[in-house]
Amino acid sequence: MSEHSERFDALFQPRGIAVIGASADLTRIGGQPIQALLAAGYAGRVYPVNPKYEAIAGIPCVADIANIDGPCDLAIVAVRADLAADAIIKCGAKGIKFAIVLSGGFREIGGNGKALEETLIAAGRKAGVRIIGPNCQGMLAVHDRVFAVFGSIAGEIGLRAGNVSLCFQSGGVGFAIATLCDSLGIGIRHCVSTGNEADVKAPELIEALLEDPKTAMVGTYLEGVADGRALMAAGDKAMRLGKPLLLWKGGKSETGAKAAASHTAQLTGSYDIFRAACRQAGIIEVEDSEEMADLIRAFSAGRLPDGRSVGVIGISGGMGIVFADAAIAHGLELPAFSDTTVETLTRIIPSFGSSANPADVTASVFNDTAILTQAIQAILDDPGIHQLCLLLASVPDPIATQNAEVVIAAATRSSKPILIGWSLKRQRAENAYALFEAAGIPIFHTPGRTARAAAGLARYAGMKASHRPTPTAIQSRTPVQQLKAGVALDEESSKQLLASYGVQAPREVLVRPDQKLADRIAGLDYPMVVKIVSEDIPHKTEAGGVILNLPDLRAVELAAARVVANAENYKPLARIGGVLISEMIADAIEMIVGTVNDDAFGPVIVVGFGGIFAEILKDVAYRVAPCDAATARQMLEDLQGYAVLNGARGRPMADVDALVSAIVAVSNLAWDLRDQIKEMDINPLLVRPKGKGVLAADALIVPVG
Amino acid sequence: MSEHSERFDALFQPRGIAVIGASADLTRIGGQPIQALLAAGYAGRVYPVNPKYEAIAGIPCVADIANIDGPCDLAIVAVRADLAADAIIKCGAKGIKFAIVLSGGFREIGGNGKALEETLIAAGRKAGVRIIGPNCQGMLAVHDRVFAVFGSIAGEIGLRAGNVSLCFQSGGVGFAIATLCDSLGIGIRHCVSTGNEADVKAPELIEALLEDPKTAMVGTYLEGVADGRALMAAGDKAMRLGKPLLLWKGGKSETGAKAAASHTAQLTGSYDIFRAACRQAGIIEVEDSEEMADLIRAFSAGRLPDGRSVGVIGISGGMGIVFADAAIAHGLELPAFSDTTVETLTRIIPSFGSSANPADVTASVFNDTAILTQAIQAILDDPGIHQLCLLLASVPDPIATQNAEVVIAAATRSSKPILIGWSLKRQRAENAYALFEAAGIPIFHTPGRTARAAAGLARYAGMKASHRPTPTAIQSRTPVQQLKAGVALDEESSKQLLASYGVQAPREVLVRPDQKLADRIAGLDYPMVVKIVSEDIPHKTEAGGVILNLPDLRAVELAAARVVANAENYKPLARIGGVLISEMIADAIEMIVGTVNDDAFGPVIVVGFGGIFAEILKDVAYRVAPCDAATARQMLEDLQGYAVLNGARGRPMADVDALVSAIVAVSNLAWDLRDQIKEMDINPLLVRPKGKGVLAADALIVPVG
Repeated sequence: MSEHSERFDALFQPRGIAVIGASADLTRIGGQPIQALLAAGYAGRVYPVNPKYEAIAGIPCVADIANIDGPCDLAIVAVRADLAADAIIKCGAKGIKFAIVLSGGFREIGGNGKALEETLIAAGRKAGVRIIGPNCQGMLAVHDRVFAVFGSIAGEIGLRAGNVSLCFQSGGVGFAIATLCDSLGIGIRHCVSTGNEADVKAPELIEALLEDPKTAMVGTYLEGVADGRALMAAGDKAMRLGKPLLLWKGGKSETGAKAAASHTAQLTGSYDIFRAACRQAGIIEVEDSEEMADLIRAFSAGRLPDGRSVGVIGISGGMGIVFADAAIAHGLELPAFSDTTVETLTRIIPSFGSSANPADVTASVFNDTAILTQAIQAILDDPGIHQLCLLLASVPDPIATQNAEVVIAAATRSSKPILIGWSLKRQRAENAYALFEAAGIPIFHTPGRTARAAAGLARYAGMKASHRPTPTAIQSRTPVQQLKAGVALDEESSKQLLASYGVQAPREVLVRPDQKLADRIAGLDYPMVVKIVSEDIPHKTEAGGVILNLPDLRAVELAAARVVANAENYKPLARIGGVLISEMIADAIEMIVGTVNDDAFGPVIVVGFGGIFAEILKDVAYRVAPCDAATARQMLEDLQGYAVLNGARGRPMADVDALVSAIVAVSNLAWDLRDQIKEMDINPLLVRPKGKGVLAADALIVPVG
Repeated sequence: MSEHSERFDALFQPRGIAVIGASADLTRIGGQPIQALLAAGYAGRVYPVNPKYEAIAGIPCVADIANIDGPCDLAIVAVRADLAADAIIKCGAKGIKFAIVLSGGFREIGGNGKALEETLIAAGRKAGVRIIGPNCQGMLAVHDRVFAVFGSIAGEIGLRAGNVSLCFQSGGVGFAIATLCDSLGIGIRHCVSTGNEADVKAPELIEALLEDPKTAMVGTYLEGVADGRALMAAGDKAMRLGKPLLLWKGGKSETGAKAAASHTAQLTGSYDIFRAACRQAGIIEVEDSEEMADLIRAFSAGRLPDGRSVGVIGISGGMGIVFADAAIAHGLELPAFSDTTVETLTRIIPSFGSSANPADVTASVFNDTAILTQAIQAILDDPGIHQLCLLLASVPDPIATQNAEVVIAAATRSSKPILIGWSLKRQRAENAYALFEAAGIPIFHTPGRTARAAAGLARYAGMKASHRPTPTAIQSRTPVQQLKAGVALDEESSKQLLASYGVQAPREVLVRPDQKLADRIAGLDYPMVVKIVSEDIPHKTEAGGVILNLPDLRAVELAAARVVANAENYKPLARIGGVLISEMIADAIEMIVGTVNDDAFGPVIVVGFGGIFAEILKDVAYRVAPCDAATARQMLEDLQGYAVLNGARGRPMADVDALVSAIVAVSNLAWDLRDQIKEMDINPLLVRPKGKGVLAADALIVPVG
């Protein structure tokens, strides 16, 4: 499928490049790109712009942008921040379509820099020039030798060309990934450092890179996005095109305390939301540059497994063991081989080896290539095995070359992924390395990294199988309510709004201070629960405002008096609306279901177990709202404590179906009223045994404003 | 401090080496060590032993061990398994002190192999020959050119000599660590592959390596140890000598289901115990070969931080961010710099940089070395900063050399650790690399690996500060009880034994079927709890055998009848001893405290939160018993849910002191009766608010047998 649009062609294949603020000192920021472009052999013309010089690095210098006398699609801007907007206007007049602003001194320094950035943005819009940066390190289009960069990367003109494109908000981090890829034999196509993203932002660039027919996958390093749904849309596009999108998130640690009214919001970190959104959008998150490079190698082979099981062949028992440790830690499975496979292996492997998974063919492969050939074939033919990892330890040439030939032949007979773990220095087996590389069979330095890469393939295959496009604009299903800005709804109103979406509360009555308790509760069954009702006390438990398990009228009356007294003691000026008296639900598991309205991702639904212990352990799952039943069910399965719902230790099965419906309903409410609701939590949502439903025992809805 | 004994000198500095089962084919297992020893330049004599040849590789071959005509301390044995014992006997007769048995076909193949290994052990004992292996890959003593190995490592004679020694149960894994170290510039002293460990086992070898005056640290890869306390003793020795002992554990994943009576044992995996024991013994656990190599580099500098805080200088904001993510994930802190430091940094760093931590000195260091000099000095002088990480991204020479000079000069003025994160290819800055290496300043390839190494230094420094030698032989404090082998103590007897160690139960009475309930409970206060008493029902809750919160006599009587009926329903033939009626404790947090008697480590104490949710999440801490109060307190702090005990969310503080005393008491009981008790758990141990103590609400003690 192609979704190629031409809007970024002028950036990646410019007919000519102007360097504005060109410096005759080729070690300076205005000189380095000129040197890099010339050294790299860029085929178009380079136009240094600076009135002070006749020529720079042997090519004519023009005094002004207006004087450029040939086709020119791209400008590299290295002038002082306060001169940049003017340059952009002149670029527009000259028909230049893209400007990469390397200069710093904009938003990142605060104060006047912010104003300069606004001016820059306005200039770009007025002149019809799209801006990369400012405060960025530039861009590479390796095939077309566009080395529009400064810094250490400007010296890496030998970077090999390939089909991996990168986009990153930090040049330091991003170009380090590019050079790491290069050192591992991975070829690069385009690399863009986006800097402050005044105009062109990462999601738009990622989409452009995905649309490039010669890009097979995209890697990105992001510290944040203003529009989270745009990033998710890029993930959707990657899924549609079948091109892996790998993302490394920088800035995960939360800084500063949060002021949030709901437990849900207190449980929620912005990184938690970010990573849940990535997963939902089919974006493959990685933890560091080495994982990114390793996964790129794994994806480069173009094979995906049908499931999470892996078959392993090692020539050392220990290598198999450390592989298995890492594989299991990363969520893979090492099932027993089929009887047929075990029979074959037992026949061919020496007695001191192993036919279990991991199989240990021992150093016998040094003497007899046929053993390896047969073992590989048997495992690739095993229907229960989805991919094969071959751990060669540090086998040198000439054995390594024989092994490579065996593996390459086997790869032609199977479509399952084959990964090689091999720690030998390249110098001791140049020939075998070259054979593996030419055949596109990926090599990883340690068993652990091999396992992590295999797990990445399985993770991506799983996301692909279950991917659904991100909801972005679903119609509201109920008449829009008008909530009072900034004032938290009290428990009763919160429950009413939830009930209108189908999430019911226990049977309960509000008893106002002037009402007779006994009459009001006549229709309810014992035991009962008494709770204070006060808009000034959102957290009732901490105020001693909840008393459970009351067996009779006398106990309820005493408890009602007690919670009022406790509330007055806790907050002397609190307005008391009365007490809420509910039937006690004793057979339920307590959960928290809530939503937060994230600045970048909009409404996000949060599900976790209730109780102080669970809150402190933060066993919580997230999804961008709205979500469907399948997604809601997946959230529950994500919880470490999921077994609690699922009949662990002889407990009754909880009503997971009803819980799923409630999650979907709450997510719809959050989506419908996304302009009005800031936070919401149901705490606890009582999940009763299968068939008995769920009940919102307490609820809090906080409008924006 | 030196603890050098001479017992392993003959292994590491043999005066001559016999190769028994020598092969004229130098690619075979009996030929490779000969070639390696000769190629490496081993200075002693090599004696190939094989009646079939006159000479091998140009040196005379002897027909029999008895014919060896010069000093010989070490034999490399490569004969068939059934001939090995005989060779050992002959070695002993010749005065050979150590034999490295490379041959396989022993215990690892089961059956007859086990018998052959027993014979081998007996031969070694009789002949006075210590045996390394069998089924091992051999040994290196790099300084003395003892390349007594086969496999790929036999070709690595260029391995650089240094002060790091390694010991490993898998040659494949271990020699891969050695070659990885070499490629990172780390020099090796001794490497021993221990194989089946028929005679010499890893803990003894580790101690020998630690005792070697020219070994500065020891790295080990282990899949298991028979005597866990011996491994801990090696850890104690490493601590005493101030030599880091790094350990990578292989085989972490639990295989097969466990049959265990107590919740404690069900919660406990053998790897959990292993890692807790390592930590307790001051052994530094690593996750893979790269972490081991990186930590070795970090320790090689010989500097340790005084705490967990790290100051960071980067020349790219992104590098600082990804460093901070990794550092925080690994338990480091990045505190704000002192006012003085911030003042200095603000003065010298350009406005588009940052004076916060991580500091971003920007690419300005390219033009002005003085900025870097001052920034480093300011941060090293900051009393709140314990170590410095400098992130150089991919700065090339000549700037890199200037930076190296600045760093090396600063290092002479401070004793704080300084770590460099630098991703540049070595070829682009040979000079700077050489300078850093000569000065012993460690370099790491990525910010993440720099952070992990810094965290390793802090972790080790913390273990050093709190280290206490492992208890091995403490006298029993109470008369030894005689428990009935294999029969679980019922709740009452279990509680009595615990009470004799000072852990009390709630006020309660046992009511036998023939007793009148009302009379028996007359002295207790309501509400009460009723529990079934049956030695056939160890898990009462699952049998419907526990009813809580009974407000009056009538309710207690009904509940007593109910639990008996439930028990009969659950297990029709269960013997019913009566019901246990206790005062209900409503103000407590439920915990589990228990012990297991591990095959390798003996009695181990386990502490976690109670309740099904906590059990499923396995938030549990372990220590080898007995433990003191400080260790017990540390266990609690290890729990993710620790805040629950510590007054989280306005809850009362729990009686942590009483909990600590109970843990110590239980650990003493487990130690005193270690020959008799297999498992024990108190579930729940009710931890009441501060000053109110703890109570064992239920208890189960299972004797061995």
